[in-house]
This record gives sequence, C-alpha cells and structure tokens, in this order.
Amino acid sequence: MSFTPTDYNAYDFANRRHIGPSPSEMEEMLRVVGVSSLDQLIEETVPASIRQETPLDWAPLAEHELLARMREVAAKNRVMTSLIGQGYYGTVTPPAIQRNILENPAWYTAYTPYQPEIAQGRLEALLNYQTMVADLTGLPVANASLLDEATAAAEAMTMAERASKSKARAFFVDADCHPQTISVIRTRAEPLGIEVIVGHPAQLVPEDVFGALFQYPGTYGLVRDFTRDIAALHEAKALAVVATDLLALCLLKEPGAMGADIAIGSSQRFGVPMGYGGPHAAFMSCKDDLKRSMPGRLVGVSVDARGNKAYRLALQTREQHIRREKATSNVCTAQALLAVMASFYAVFHGPRGLRAIAERVHLNTVRLATALKEAGARVSPEAFFDTITVEVGVGQAGILAAARHRGINLRKVGRDRVGISLDETTDAGVIARVLDAFGIHEPAPAKVGLGFPEPLLRETGYLSHPVFQMNRAESEMMRYMRRLSDRDLALDRAMIPLGSCTMKLNAAAEMMPITWPEFGTLHPFAPADQAAGYHEAIGDLAQRLCRITGYDAMSMQPNSGAQGEYAGLLTILAYHRARGDAERTICLIPVSAHGTNPASAQMAGMKVVVVKSAPNGDVDLEDFRDKAAAAGDRLAACMITYPSTHGVFEETVREVCRITHEHGGQVYIDGANMNAMVGLVQPGAIGGDVSHLNLHKTFAIPHGGGGPGMGPIGVKAHLAPYLPGHPEVTGPLTGGHDEAADEGPVSAAPYGSASILLISWAYCLMMGGEGLTQATRVAILNANYIAARLRGAYKVLFMGNRGRVAHECILDTRPFAEAGVTVDDIAKRLIDNGFHAPTMSWPVPGTLMVEPTESETKAEIDRFVAALLAIREEIRAVEEGEIAAADSPLRHAPHTVEDLVADWDRKYPREQGCFPPGSFRVDKYWPPVGRVDNAWGDRNLVCTCPPVESYSIAAQ
Amino acid sequence: MSFTPTDYNAYDFANRRHIGPSPSEMEEMLRVVGVSSLDQLIEETVPASIRQETPLDWAPLAEHELLARMREVAAKNRVMTSLIGQGYYGTVTPPAIQRNILENPAWYTAYTPYQPEIAQGRLEALLNYQTMVADLTGLPVANASLLDEATAAAEAMTMAERASKSKARAFFVDADCHPQTISVIRTRAEPLGIEVIVGHPAQLVPEDVFGALFQYPGTYGLVRDFTRDIAALHEAKALAVVATDLLALCLLKEPGAMGADIAIGSSQRFGVPMGYGGPHAAFMSCKDDLKRSMPGRLVGVSVDARGNKAYRLALQTREQHIRREKATSNVCTAQALLAVMASFYAVFHGPRGLRAIAERVHLNTVRLATALKEAGARVSPEAFFDTITVEVGVGQAGILAAARHRGINLRKVGRDRVGISLDETTDAGVIARVLDAFGIHEPAPAKVGLGFPEPLLRETGYLSHPVFQMNRAESEMMRYMRRLSDRDLALDRAMIPLGSCTMKLNAAAEMMPITWPEFGTLHPFAPADQAAGYHEAIGDLAQRLCRITGYDAMSMQPNSGAQGEYAGLLTILAYHRARGDAERTICLIPVSAHGTNPASAQMAGMKVVVVKSAPNGDVDLEDFRDKAAAAGDRLAACMITYPSTHGVFEETVREVCRITHEHGGQVYIDGANMNAMVGLVQPGAIGGDVSHLNLHKTFAIPHGGGGPGMGPIGVKAHLAPYLPGHPEVTGPLTGGHDEAADEGPVSAAPYGSASILLISWAYCLMMGGEGLTQATRVAILNANYIAARLRGAYKVLFMGNRGRVAHECILDTRPFAEAGVTVDDIAKRLIDNGFHAPTMSWPVPGTLMVEPTESETKAEIDRFVAALLAIREEIRAVEEGEIAAADSPLRHAPHTVEDLVADWDRKYPREQGCFPPGSFRVDKYWPPVGRVDNAWGDRNLVCTCPPVESYSIAAQ
Repeated sequence: MSFTPTDYNAYDFANRRHIGPSPSEMEEMLRVVGVSSLDQLIEETVPASIRQETPLDWAPLAEHELLARMREVAAKNRVMTSLIGQGYYGTVTPPAIQRNILENPAWYTAYTPYQPEIAQGRLEALLNYQTMVADLTGLPVANASLLDEATAAAEAMTMAERASKSKARAFFVDADCHPQTISVIRTRAEPLGIEVIVGHPAQLVPEDVFGALFQYPGTYGLVRDFTRDIAALHEAKALAVVATDLLALCLLKEPGAMGADIAIGSSQRFGVPMGYGGPHAAFMSCKDDLKRSMPGRLVGVSVDARGNKAYRLALQTREQHIRREKATSNVCTAQALLAVMASFYAVFHGPRGLRAIAERVHLNTVRLATALKEAGARVSPEAFFDTITVEVGVGQAGILAAARHRGINLRKVGRDRVGISLDETTDAGVIARVLDAFGIHEPAPAKVGLGFPEPLLRETGYLSHPVFQMNRAESEMMRYMRRLSDRDLALDRAMIPLGSCTMKLNAAAEMMPITWPEFGTLHPFAPADQAAGYHEAIGDLAQRLCRITGYDAMSMQPNSGAQGEYAGLLTILAYHRARGDAERTICLIPVSAHGTNPASAQMAGMKVVVVKSAPNGDVDLEDFRDKAAAAGDRLAACMITYPSTHGVFEETVREVCRITHEHGGQVYIDGANMNAMVGLVQPGAIGGDVSHLNLHKTFAIPHGGGGPGMGPIGVKAHLAPYLPGHPEVTGPLTGGHDEAADEGPVSAAPYGSASILLISWAYCLMMGGEGLTQATRVAILNANYIAARLRGAYKVLFMGNRGRVAHECILDTRPFAEAGVTVDDIAKRLIDNGFHAPTMSWPVPGTLMVEPTESETKAEIDRFVAALLAIREEIRAVEEGEIAAADSPLRHAPHTVEDLVADWDRKYPREQGCFPPGSFRVDKYWPPVGRVDNAWGDRNLVCTCPPVESYSIAAQ
Repeated sequence: MSFTPTDYNAYDFANRRHIGPSPSEMEEMLRVVGVSSLDQLIEETVPASIRQETPLDWAPLAEHELLARMREVAAKNRVMTSLIGQGYYGTVTPPAIQRNILENPAWYTAYTPYQPEIAQGRLEALLNYQTMVADLTGLPVANASLLDEATAAAEAMTMAERASKSKARAFFVDADCHPQTISVIRTRAEPLGIEVIVGHPAQLVPEDVFGALFQYPGTYGLVRDFTRDIAALHEAKALAVVATDLLALCLLKEPGAMGADIAIGSSQRFGVPMGYGGPHAAFMSCKDDLKRSMPGRLVGVSVDARGNKAYRLALQTREQHIRREKATSNVCTAQALLAVMASFYAVFHGPRGLRAIAERVHLNTVRLATALKEAGARVSPEAFFDTITVEVGVGQAGILAAARHRGINLRKVGRDRVGISLDETTDAGVIARVLDAFGIHEPAPAKVGLGFPEPLLRETGYLSHPVFQMNRAESEMMRYMRRLSDRDLALDRAMIPLGSCTMKLNAAAEMMPITWPEFGTLHPFAPADQAAGYHEAIGDLAQRLCRITGYDAMSMQPNSGAQGEYAGLLTILAYHRARGDAERTICLIPVSAHGTNPASAQMAGMKVVVVKSAPNGDVDLEDFRDKAAAAGDRLAACMITYPSTHGVFEETVREVCRITHEHGGQVYIDGANMNAMVGLVQPGAIGGDVSHLNLHKTFAIPHGGGGPGMGPIGVKAHLAPYLPGHPEVTGPLTGGHDEAADEGPVSAAPYGSASILLISWAYCLMMGGEGLTQATRVAILNANYIAARLRGAYKVLFMGNRGRVAHECILDTRPFAEAGVTVDDIAKRLIDNGFHAPTMSWPVPGTLMVEPTESETKAEIDRFVAALLAIREEIRAVEEGEIAAADSPLRHAPHTVEDLVADWDRKYPREQGCFPPGSFRVDKYWPPVGRVDNAWGDRNLVCTCPPVESYSIAAQ
C-alpha cells in the first residue's frame, strides 16, 4: 500500500462530459473498426495533404470555471431600461415559460419536426403560434416563424413579386419602416434586380410597383389606416405588405381588415428576451390564395393510420422554397423555440390578458405624451400606440445623456428628436424617470383616453380557440407544457443520428448564461459601452473561430446557415465589384451540393453552373476544369462542401480551389460538415476564401425544435472589408465596418441572434483546443464504428480511398425497394426502437445518412446498431416472402398504445411490434400517433388550430 | 364602439396563476356546493367566533416585480470564498444536475414515495444514495437521508440507546465534534435523561456509557484510527458512532473497517450548495443487526404483481419511529431532493472521479499546510484530510480580517487559532490568497505527499455497482435523469390530492432565486454582514408569518414540521422551568392527533395524556376538562390541531384553550392545517401560545420527493425568550437570543434550511395579504366542491355543524370491505386514472382523506371526481356480484404496458383496464411496474442497489 495520486481530471469537460465514448469504449470501437489507434483511423480518413499544421492549443475551462468567467463577462454589460423600440421591446418572460420551455432540454434539444409522429408536441405549439398570428393580423394563414422582422420583410417583398400580376419591377417601402428593415430589403432587392422606392405613402404610385410595404405602427410611432392605399395598390394589381406589431394589434384594427395581402413582424415582445438582438421569431401571415407562395414552414393538421388527428408540416413539397437555381427565398431555419415561447405567452395571458397588457402599454404612453405636452414639449405623432418622438433640438445629446443617467436608453432620432417606446415592463417609476430627464417633475396624469382615433380601435375578436381560453393557473400551464414535451422525442431521451445536422450535446453549462438578465435584457441598439461584456464574448469567439477555420475575419451577423451562405456570396460579389469585376457572376456548384447553395447563389444574383459528380460522389474534376475555363473571367466563385455531402474527404479539394483561383474566382466552402474538420483541417488553409459555420451544428447551439441557429461567416483578409455592415451598429463589427454602415446588412441585428453566441463561446472555452480536436476525431470514430458494425447488413456508400467514411455514413436502402420496403418504413420503424430517423434520401435518394456525432456513447450507438440490424432481419423476412411488406411491422410502424389496446390482428406478435431490439422496456417512448398521412393533410389543408372538442383532454 | 379600459390585471399572481379555479369556474362550483357566494360558504364553514378581525393587507407583487426584489436582496449578500468548514464546504454542483434535478419540477414537486408504483424513479435514485453511503462508510445498511448532521448525530445517540445492551445512561461525545453537533445532542439528551459527556477520546470510560460519538475527520481537522476505542466500547456492550465526511472517505479508511456500529454525516459537499445552512441531506448507515432500530426511511427492493423488480420503502411498519408516546425519534421528513442530488453527484463522478476530487482537496491542504509551516507557522493537527488550524495568538482578528479583505472567510477557533478547510472549489489562486493573508508570498509547493499516515489510507474499493460505473457523458447522465423522472408522477403532471399534505403549486418564480449564487454559496457561519440579504428576507418573512398567525415571534430554525413541534414543546418547558414550574410535564393530546404530536411530547420529556374524541371527531370536551383538572399544576401543555385532523373547524377550540390556560398550561396548536386558516383565523388569536408552520405545505416549498421541509415556530411574546438558540449564530435570531447561545438548538444551522425560506417569502410577497386569504377560501371551496360532487357515491365523514368540510374531506371506504374491495385497491386504481392516491387510512382507518388545495382548477378536480365516480361503479359491480373483487380492475390496478403486451385473460376489456374515466388518452401516464408486493420485500430485505444485469437498459 503506497499512495500514488490518481491521474484523472474529474472536471475535464471535453472528455468526461461532451465526448461520448470513454477511453475503454474507444479501445473496443477501434478494434471493431480495425485500426490500432485513433491516430491511425484519422490517418486513413483525412488526407495528410490537407491536415492543418498547428494544433488548436488553448486551455480548457471546467464547467464551474466557465460559469465564473461568464459571470465576470456578464457583469461588464449594464442592465438598463431600454425605451429605444425600433422592433425590440422590454417584455416579461413568464417564469413558468422560462423554466419549462427555454430551460428545458426536452424543448431546446429537439430537431425540426420533419418526423411528425415524434414531434406532435411542438407541432401543436407551433400550430398555436400560427393561429395566434393569423388571428391577430386578421389574415387566415400564418407560417411557423421566420428569422427576424427585417428578413421577413424582404421575404414578403419576393413573395409579392412571385404572386403579383403587376408587370412593375419596383417595390415601395414606407419611410416609416425600421431603418434595419429598409437596409435588409435593399440588400436583398439589389441582386434580384428589384428597385426599392423608399418614401411617404402619399408618394406611392401604385402602377409603378408590384408591391408595397407599410409599417403599422411606424418606426416613429404613427398609427394610420392604410385601407385606401391598399385598395389603390390592388387596383394596380400590386400587393400590400404590412409590417406590424402583435401587441399593438390587440388594440388596433388589424391589417387584414385594411385589406393587406401579407403581414409580417416580430413576436419578440411576446415574452422573448431581447438578448442583444435575438433570437426571436418573426412572423408572416397572408391571404388564403397566397399560401402556396409563402416561405417558411407551415404546420398543418392531418390524420394518422387509425384516422386520429395528427399534426405535421404541410405542403412540404414547397418546403423552404429551396428551388435550387430558381430560388427567390432561402429560409431554411425558422425560430421554432422562440415561436413556441411566444405562443405560450399568448396561451398564458389569453386574449383578455393580452388586451390588458396592450392597454396598459398604450395608456402609459398617452400619460407620458400628455405630461410632455403639458410641459410644452413638441410630441409627435398625433396618433400612436406605444411610441412617440419629442423635438429636442440641440438638446438631443443632453436629453439622451440625462435619461441614461437615470438608467434609461432613449432613441436618437435624426439630429433633433428623441424617440420613446414603452412596453409591458414600463411602470410609473420609469415614466417618472423619463419625465425627470426632460426636467419635468410633475407626475403624469392618471386618467387619460386613447392616443389614436376611435375608428382605429380593433373591432374583431381574437384567440377564441379553446387553447387560448384555458384556465391560466400555473399548474394547468405547467402540465400542458409537460404533456406537449412528453409527446416528442428529443436529444434528452435518445440520439438523433441525422446526417448533416450534427445533433451533438447541448450542455447545461452552455445553456445557463443565456437566461441571466445581464445577457437577456440588452437592446441590440443600446450604446456600445453598455454591452462591453457582449463585445468581449463575441470578439473572443470570433477570434477562436478564425483560428479554427484559418480565416482572418468573421461576421457574426447571419442568423442561419443559409443566411451565412448568402452573406458570403454577397461579400464575394462586393469584392469583385470593388475590383472592377462586376461581370463576375458565375458560380460553379456540384450537383451533390446542399440545395441551399444554388438557392443562395441565385438570390445573390449569380448564375449557377452545375458541376457533375464522379461515380464515387466526388466532384468530377474534369467537368469542373472545363466549366471553370468556360466561365473564364465571368467566374465569380465555386461553392463546395468539405468533407463532401457524401461524407468523404475528397483529396482533390486543393485542386478545385486552385482551378477556381486560377480563373479569378473565389472559393466558398460550405461549413455544414465542419464537425469533421475542427482541429484537423482549416477551410481557410486548403484554399477557401469564405465559409459559413453552422453554430447550431458544430458549435453546440441547440436546434430548439427547428431554430434558432447562427451562421457566421469567416473570410480571408482580402474579403473582410466587404462583410455585411449595419445601419445601427453599436460596437465594432468583426469585418471591415467599424461604424454604422447603411449597406449590406443581411439580418435585423448587428450580431444576429447575439445571445446564443454565448453558447458556442462556452463550448469553445470548455472544450479547449485539444478537446475540440478530439471531438472531431471521435465524431469520425463513431461514424466509422457504425459503418463497421453494419457491414454485411447494409451497403455503406461513398467510402474514401482507404475504406473510411468521415463523420457520417450513408446506408443504401434502394436494394430493399424490390421487396416493397421503403426508406420511410425504416425511418418509422426506428421510432419503435426509440430513435429519430437518420436523414432520408439526401444526398442520394433511397438512402439514410447517419451522423452520430462525438457526443454519443458506445452504448447508445450499440442500441442504434441493434435496432438497424433487427430492422434488416425484418426486411429479410419480407425479401424471403415470410411476410408481405404491407403486413410487416415495418409498414405498421410506428406502433402506438392504441395498437395494443385494439384487437390485435397483425401477422406478427405484439411483443415484436412494440419492443423491437434497441427499444427500452420500462422507459419506452410511445409515439402519440401512428404513421401520419401527409397527402391527406395537403388535400385538406388546415393550418390553424382545428375546432376540436378540446385540447389535451382526458379520455372522457 | 367606444373605448373602455379592461378591468383585468394580467400580472395578478394570486388569482391568475396560483389559485386554480377561474372566477367563472368558481361560480359553477358554488352552485354545485349549494351556496350563493364564497362568503356564504366561508360563513358556513369557519365559525364566526374564531374569525380574525384585521385582514391581511399587504400589496402583492407581480412575478417580475418579485424577481426584481429578489435580485436587490441577493445583491446585499456578499459572495465570498468560505473556508470555514465545520460541516459546510464549497462544492461544484454539476450544471446537468442543477438543471435536470434541482430546477426540474418533475423532481422537485414529487411527494414522498409512499405509493411505490408511481415513484420508481426517485426510489432508484434514493437506493443509489443508500448504496453510496453504505459503500463509503463501509457499513452495510444506509437510510435514505436525515435532516442534518447534528440531528443525525442525536438520532444515532437515541438509536444507540435503543440498541445497546449496556445499562449505562450516559453518552460520550468527542470534543472534536462540530460545536453545533454537540449542542443539538445536548438539547436532545436532556429531556430523555441521557447524560452527555464531552471529552477527548482518551478520557472515555467505556463502562460508563451506552455509546460514544467520535468525529472523523475532527472539526479541527484531526484524522485518527478509532479501531481500539471502538473495540473497548464493544467490550463494554456500548456502541460506537462515527460522524464522518463522505469525501474524506474516498481516501481514508472507512468507519466500518474500524468496527463502527453507526456512521452519520452530511452529504452536502456532494454537489449541494451551502445555501446559508441548507437544505442538505444528512446520512446514516449501520451494521446489519441494527437496521430495524434505524430512524428514517429505507428504500428496498421487492417485486411487482408480475414478479418484476420494483423498489419501495422498506420496513414501513417501523417507518419514522413515530411510536407515539414511546418515541425516541421523530424524523418524519427526509431530505430526498438533496439526497437525490448527492447520489447523482456520485453517479456523475464515479469512484475514480470522487477519489480524484478527494486527492485534489487533500493535496491542496497539504500544500497549504507545508507553505505555512515553512514560513514558521504552527499548524495542527499532524494528520489531517482537508482542515488545519493555525496558531495566530493575538493576531487572530487581524488574520481573519486580512483573509476577508482577500475575499476569504476563515474560521475563528478559540482565541488564538484560525481554522482553514479546503474543498473542491479551492484552486491555486485561493491558496495564494490565504497565504497572502498570512503575509506569505512564496507559492505553495507543487509536489507534496500525504498529510496523514499511510495506514489510514483506505484499502477497500467503493461504488462498484454498475450505476456508478456508467459512462459519464452528459448525454448519458441527462437521459438517465430523464428516464427516472419519467417513471414518476408528480405535481407537474397531475394533482396530488393528499389530505394533510397540502400539495399546492410550487411556482417557477418562487423557485428561481434559490439557485442564484448569491443565495447558494453562503456558508451558514459566514459573518453577519455578508448575509444582509438573507437577514432581510428571513426577517421580513418572520414578520409576515407573525401577522398571519397572530404570534409575536418566530424561530426559523426547525427544519421539519416534527422538529418544529419538538422545538415548540421545549420552548414551553423552558418557560415553565424559568417560572419555577419544573414539574409541569403533562401534555394533553387528543387521540386523533398526528402521531408526531405524542412523539414530540415524549421526546421533550413530557408525559402524554390522551384525550378522547367525540363521535363527530371533535375533542371530547368533558374528557378534556377532566384530564386537565387531574393534571392540575402538573399540566404543561395541550397539543391540538386546528382545524382538526378530521378537517373540521371545531367550535370548541376557544374553550379548550381557556381550560388549558386556566390550569396554567400552554396551548400548542399544530399548524399542519394552516392552509385552512391563513387570513381567516389566527392560531395566536384563538388561544394558541405556540404553533409550528409547515412551510412545505402551506407556504409553497415543494416536497422534493420527500423533503426538504421547514417547520418554523411562532410563539406569543412571553415564550419568545425561550426559543432555540444557536452556538454559531451570525445574525439576530427572531427569538430572544440575539447572540450566540450554546443552549437549545434543534438544528445544525441557525436558520435551518435557510435557502428555501426564500420560496415561502416569495410566495407571501406575490400573493399579497388578500391573495393569501383568497387562497384559503378557495382551498375550502375546492374541498367542499369535491364533497358535493361525490355525495351519494361516497360517504363523507366529519362535516361541520352546517354540513361543510374545511380544506379537506374524508371519504369512507369501509362499507366496501364486505365486497372485498380495500382502500388499497382504490388507491392503486387511481393510478390508472393518472392520480396519486389521497391519504390512506388516516386519521381514520379505512378512509381516504382528500385535499385538493386552492391550486387545482375545476377541470383537474372534475377529472379526479370522474375517476372516483367510475371507481365507485366498479365497486358496485363487485358488490352486485357482476365480477369478483379478485378479478376486477380494482385488484389488478395499476395496469401497465406489460399487461397490454401479454395475453389478455382478464374478465374486463383492455380499454376499461387501461383507460378508465379521468385518465388521459394520448398523454397517459403508465406506471413502470404493477402493484408492488411489500411483504415480499420486507421478507427479502435488500437496501442497496441490486446486482441486476444492468440499469435502465434496452429491451435486449
């Protein structure tokens, strides 16, 4: 007996908590894969020629060290009362929603509800959201959210262009729109050849435009009735879009009642913290005849195999408007988690509560305006909801400073006005402090009337569906949230082996800071000195991402992957233009690319030229060379994914880059597969000029059931000056724009969904450089282990030269077609085993793409392999004629409790149907519905809450 | 159309969120009850003669206002590094455990696992806890936690007395025990006539004692081997108790290996924040032959109706040692939630991680000691684990101040020493700051050896069970926690209508502050000026509780209801003694009292005289008068419950109090039913002199699956000087002791489980005086509504004079016995309906006591009524011979998925079995096991993790 200290670091986040397999499990896995070490596997997988030379080397932090660091940084932000408005408002997040949704992994770790049988809970919550938006805007169809208000406005513009029968090529934008909305519209319009006319509605010539956007209430507060303007537009076959505010619509006449075709806006103030810019859910609703032109996801109602009501994403054929080279929209990511929060806020308050809140906000604004006027101030507009501006002349800076001194941020408007927007958190104390800043010490009047003409009062009811009429006791609310989340299968119960989606651990320590008030309550346009903590975090994250990617600068603005692609291509075009190369517009894209690639190129105004694939899935180098040569000095860029969408590290990548550069083009490397590269390969070092990173894939931001995400872009130094700017920038952007730049923004907020950047930062800090690299290596090990375990049962497509896959593997299910077994059958049968299906039929139809990520343990992967092997046996039984495909458990999957309660007339035992290998016994997940009939739902489209008997009801 | 503002307060917490029925629901309910208004119902229920005159009148806070206030108060606490030790240590709560256990209503809203079928998750977690304690202490049987270390020590003393064959009446206590442990032991020993001998182990004369308590490591750090001392005790038929530290035992020889009979201690430093004193779980383990003498709850393994493994509380016949008048223990409340956290901490780190942490703490202590010694300081002891003391002579105050100046609290030891206890959060920076406070600027040495002799190194392994060998990836941990919580039915899914337990809403806003570091990291003996926020909160809560109860002073020290009773009776006795009435020891207690009442009286050294009940359940006034007269000037007190345990407001209460006072006695009113009184009746105004309040019933502290709880006592002014003191008090107690008092403490910490007092404070602040009163009124309405709805189907016992119940109602199930249907059948059948059973066979055997609380909505209550009515129909079918009781769904309840998968040979349809009225269909809760066989488990007692194949495993 002698003492030797243990060589074990209990606080090693990377290897103890984040990375799934333990060292001893890895040993076993390497044996199965047939290599002697992880090093050897990486040698055989990642070509030496592209490996990075300098390892990532920063030291890791333990979880408690990370939280201590986060508290230090949080303390550098100043929590003030922001009355800046401009699309962002103080709000009260109901604690029950914060705790049970935003802080609950059952909600935040879920994936997009493409597999409806295991997503009925969030589909119901999103249907509630759609119903809420449709009701409040007075338009019958609403989608399940968009990225932000400015993007939604741009989407409405292109939607109007698609739907309008006008021949005009211009779009009118009300000058009373938020500045960032106007900027983003300009960015989007330019490459599409749309002329943007900004002006006062009185200046609008309907015949000149295919559509117009009005803002209501306006950015400076004005509320007015647009009925006549809209009628005039309709006369001219142009469409009317109204940017609006859900809280205002609880009191004000709704856009639908004015004849609007489309309404858009942000649902942020329905309980979602400002978070220095996001994430929040934007909304869009439209007239019924426009619904098939609407971007984004649409939840609808259908039936399952037993004819019971079931929700699912509707019209998926038009899903995302990714029409590759014909795209005019590329909204892939919604903001599901935030839409869910906003919908619960509405459920939580109900129509009476919302109305009361809207009245409170409005009457407080009237009180303030009255007090200001009585003191002699010039206040406008005459008719307002929650926002006024005050003429202060040369005293502007003084008033702004006086308010700040009292803990309040007002808005600087022009050179001689200040803007004030109240919200539900505004109380008498805040009003008194504002007045005090103006030198007014009289209290605001207690009794006031409306601050707008009575005809603008809303006449119609809203939120009459039973779900908004629930008893609002917290017990009831909590149980409703629990019931919905229990219907869903998320990462907190099982692995989600979705190829190309990188569903890794979202660690609790990473998630905790985002609900701290020091991060949650900051307005995105607050003065920079109040956001020093954010700037430190964002700057440090950007710097680390540069080291990871080999780029020189990062823009944190794009708030989705597709947004990042788009921003990256615009950056390339701006660079070319600045060099006088305006004619460089051709973009080479391999046929196997993500659909978002050609869509982004199209939206950026590029001409897409498709490059063939070689039989092994690689880029056909010869074809690439030919097409690059053909493009010549019109070559703008190529877009490639690395490792390829087939999950292989192509050895030819450097050659592709070389050819592109040779012809003067820029190389865009899609960062979707970055999880196979971090620490091993830098896109910026193998020839890339730009890449976007999906922080919600590789950098641990949770998927939130379909958003939020973040898609920052890294660029080489020569492109840095052309990164997106922002009209309201309040701190240094990491690109070339250190000051407010009115051009080129792609998102409403300077740093996109800033608050969730903290998650990726926490991830980078806790992993350390070595941990990040090890994560990549283990992600590759996990994928190769699955490929090895399934050998013989399934054909694995697209191995590399040495028989290795990268971080995902593609299983060929086409051979089963002859026996009548579809890829869908396998996906649904996996639900019985307790798993989300892998990615289906992408990048190759009739295949399953499996990506385990580094976070899954050997035990969980073995459970998954057991499931797939058992399914293979069930397929074999069909192939060998023991049972018909239509009678098999594959076709009847997923099995529900209803199947067990009903008489059992199946040709296989209950036990086999419900408890296939891999499924838990005691802890089994039961899908609430059987297989959902998508076609039925699209034929009978219902996209608001159905008039069911009641919600979440007892059996009787 | 004209504008009239809505009369609706969206932020009204009391009426919108906490109180279940909406105004319109209340209208309907009043109609069913048969009254025209809530006022009328209260008139008919609560006798006018006892109603309070002054309404509670403080204004309510909205949830966001409460959180803002909490932040202000939090900011008044100073977060320092406390190296005080003395039973409380810094610890790192793993974020995954904080988020998924402590902040998860599925865990914190659960009730004590008396219904094992719906508690398998937390029973498994508690079995893990028992296994962990048994392993680490080296003793084979451990219980599922006790209140705190000092109480556990006192319990060990009385357990030793019960079990020892020695005739001696003295108990030896090592002077190296924590001062608060010694004080609590003295408090407990005195009324039981046990002599406490405090001294150095060398002074111990084994023949003089029935047992001895040693502390290891000692409060001043010493670690030594007690093997010889223990052997000497055994020679003399005395038992040896060792107070110990779980982290130290990861490195040090375990008490079991020294021959100890009993081990106790705190598991706080296994991931549970200090929280200014609690709550934390104390532990106790013992030799196998002592297990039937062990206090507290014991989880064991048994089988269910299908023979599958199932957990449940073992040896419930001896549960709680509430042996009424013969009690020597009264530990009703455990600290389940905290025990679960500690057990997950062990699962999270595993034996290697724990060992590594223990080594880190120890070696850091050696480094520090070495550096101090090298600089010439006199450091003791020679052998230590994590605690040392340093002789500083007259420099004591200076050193303590210098350390505080550097953000560190050291311990004041005597007049010339300081104590330093390191913990897992201690890093090199902290060590450097400590040295700096001593004027030492050299770094501590990097390489050091053990700080105790090698023979004290632990030789045995621990935590070898698979659950502690799990892969510790967070994904795996998170899923394990989720699976366990999914097995349980808690308030987050359904009402828990437990009579006398008041399972009301535990609102998210009330729970949030307790995990803020400003509240979590405070050491209970930190200097008072660092805890100003706590003192403000506790003082304000005490003052409001005084207003609610009509008392003049409050002691916040008792950390359970039973502890409160005990402390209250000691206060009465001390008062009598001070007046020269030492012979006043008789306590009158009605036969219908809570079993804890006579137990507490017995433990306080009183002589219990039982008073009869009248047939209507009231106190038999004549018998009371007679027995009071018989007691005469030996009458110390009477203990009554109001409203009575039968749920009735007895009109005679004033008379009972009058008689007691007439004979010089004091009136103890048990506050268990305070939820029927708040705002309507003040116990202090109807004649009470003392009451305890169950904050975990009436004041919204969650039950945590069987603890924590808090049982503060309110007293009239004349008793205030006799409230419990505390040797380490750091702020003003609310009783008579403003300074440290070595006498009379009942808990280890001055304010008991201080951190959860914040929950009750938040509740009082958000409800406001009016809201609290309305909650009481609605609690009474809900109970009367249930009674009215069940009329005709069930006999409701013990109505008041006007046919009303108070806040609970008792259903008589004895009439069904003839048909063979038991109260158990009904309780288990309710599980099929998705409900926790009401309280069974208490206060009357063969009955169910239902308490809905004010938080349940009409819809949820109707669901419950539907269930009970359907069950009544099933009973009728048995009564009428349609089906035998043994064949009925009542007897086969609860139904599981296994029943559905198996061949169905029952005499009723699957549908009836599994989906009775009231149960959810899609969202049905399925119990993981069928009816548990308790007798089998007690015959085959297994109280540590069974050597099962594996944990939470897949079907194959």
